Amino acid sequence: MTIKHNVSDSVIRRLPRYYRFLGELLDSGVERISSKELSLRMGLTASQIRQDLNCFGGFGQQGYGYNIAELHSEIEGILGINNKINVVLIGAGNLGLAIASYMNFKQRGFKLVGIFEKDPQKVGKKIRDVQIYDICDLEKICDKLSPTAAVLCVPKDVAKSVVSDLIPLGIKGFLNFSHYDISLEHSDVYVENVHISDSFMTLGFKLRQPDNHKEDL
Amino acid sequence: MTIKHNVSDSVIRRLPRYYRFLGELLDSGVERISSKELSLRMGLTASQIRQDLNCFGGFGQQGYGYNIAELHSEIEGILGINNKINVVLIGAGNLGLAIASYMNFKQRGFKLVGIFEKDPQKVGKKIRDVQIYDICDLEKICDKLSPTAAVLCVPKDVAKSVVSDLIPLGIKGFLNFSHYDISLEHSDVYVENVHISDSFMTLGFKLRQPDNHKEDL
Repeated sequence: MTIKHNVSDSVIRRLPRYYRFLGELLDSGVERISSKELSLRMGLTASQIRQDLNCFGGFGQQGYGYNIAELHSEIEGILGINNKINVVLIGAGNLGLAIASYMNFKQRGFKLVGIFEKDPQKVGKKIRDVQIYDICDLEKICDKLSPTAAVLCVPKDVAKSVVSDLIPLGIKGFLNFSHYDISLEHSDVYVENVHISDSFMTLGFKLRQPDNHKEDL
Repeated sequence: MTIKHNVSDSVIRRLPRYYRFLGELLDSGVERISSKELSLRMGLTASQIRQDLNCFGGFGQQGYGYNIAELHSEIEGILGINNKINVVLIGAGNLGLAIASYMNFKQRGFKLVGIFEKDPQKVGKKIRDVQIYDICDLEKICDKLSPTAAVLCVPKDVAKSVVSDLIPLGIKGFLNFSHYDISLEHSDVYVENVHISDSFMTLGFKLRQPDNHKEDL
């Protein structure tokens, strides 16, 4: 499969959504779909869908549409789901434990290899077969587990210091739930931010606008 | 304060970030800041910051910069943080409990008034003084609590049905952790999606690219 250079960030961000939708269609036994039908289900225009998939070589056939199994497997290949990335999770508080307990890491292309926490009452326990290690042993354990990604579920100040510790240990990408802006000080790593409190504030802002402003937002 | 019409979605999405950064500066005792300094701290250009804040009337003074307390309070007003929105949380699984336990709803402009769950072992308990109700009592309790927003921490199929139940009960906005695309079937409500698994897949995609592609993403 051919990945065009300079594929935009917004196309890349839509790929996981295509993958999810196609997976659901597959599960429900649908074999093929036109870009028009897919567009109705996904709330995108058919031309947008054709453009997006063209960035990766284009898999549709005129008059036939997309073979769902094929397209699903192509996108799986592009996303690299089968090539698992070792990931560690930092912070076994409420949010960290929730992510460790409910996220299907394998289905998303990752293998959770360790959880780090400072609370001695949690250290040594396991979440779904994954060990909680003492954060003081970060270097030793990372040397052994070779993670290249980390999920940050710690407060901002802890995040700042732990990121500085993690990068020399080989971490190249972060899923960041903290409010620490990693990219400002470390431009050489990939960061996906999940700022839940910002989403709350944005929703609140929208809800407080007069009704007739909805279409402007 | 004047809010210009047609303020773009991306400006609105940056407001919570301004609010957070300014709050931290306030806490650390800083009194004023130039758009240049703020830009360095936030990783935006100074001209971007001036443009953003101009959308809401502009509060800077040439040669003086921004008075942080004033700007923080203006943005707080624009976001409407002090005008609390009653919100319910649906689904007291790992993620729902994490959100209910760690999110500072008040600081984000919300009041969590109730949690709904089907598991009888959880119903009747409280999380930080907020009652867990039986999902079967949704209508009765919502009539009493008058929420206008809901946080969805349930699987896709449950989300679909519960959204249909919630909208007639007065819910006008959703913070959506499920994979159900609310906007497709309900264009009349505000939705903020937090798709954690999509963020994982996007991060994975980026990590798997050859090093020299980083600048393209």
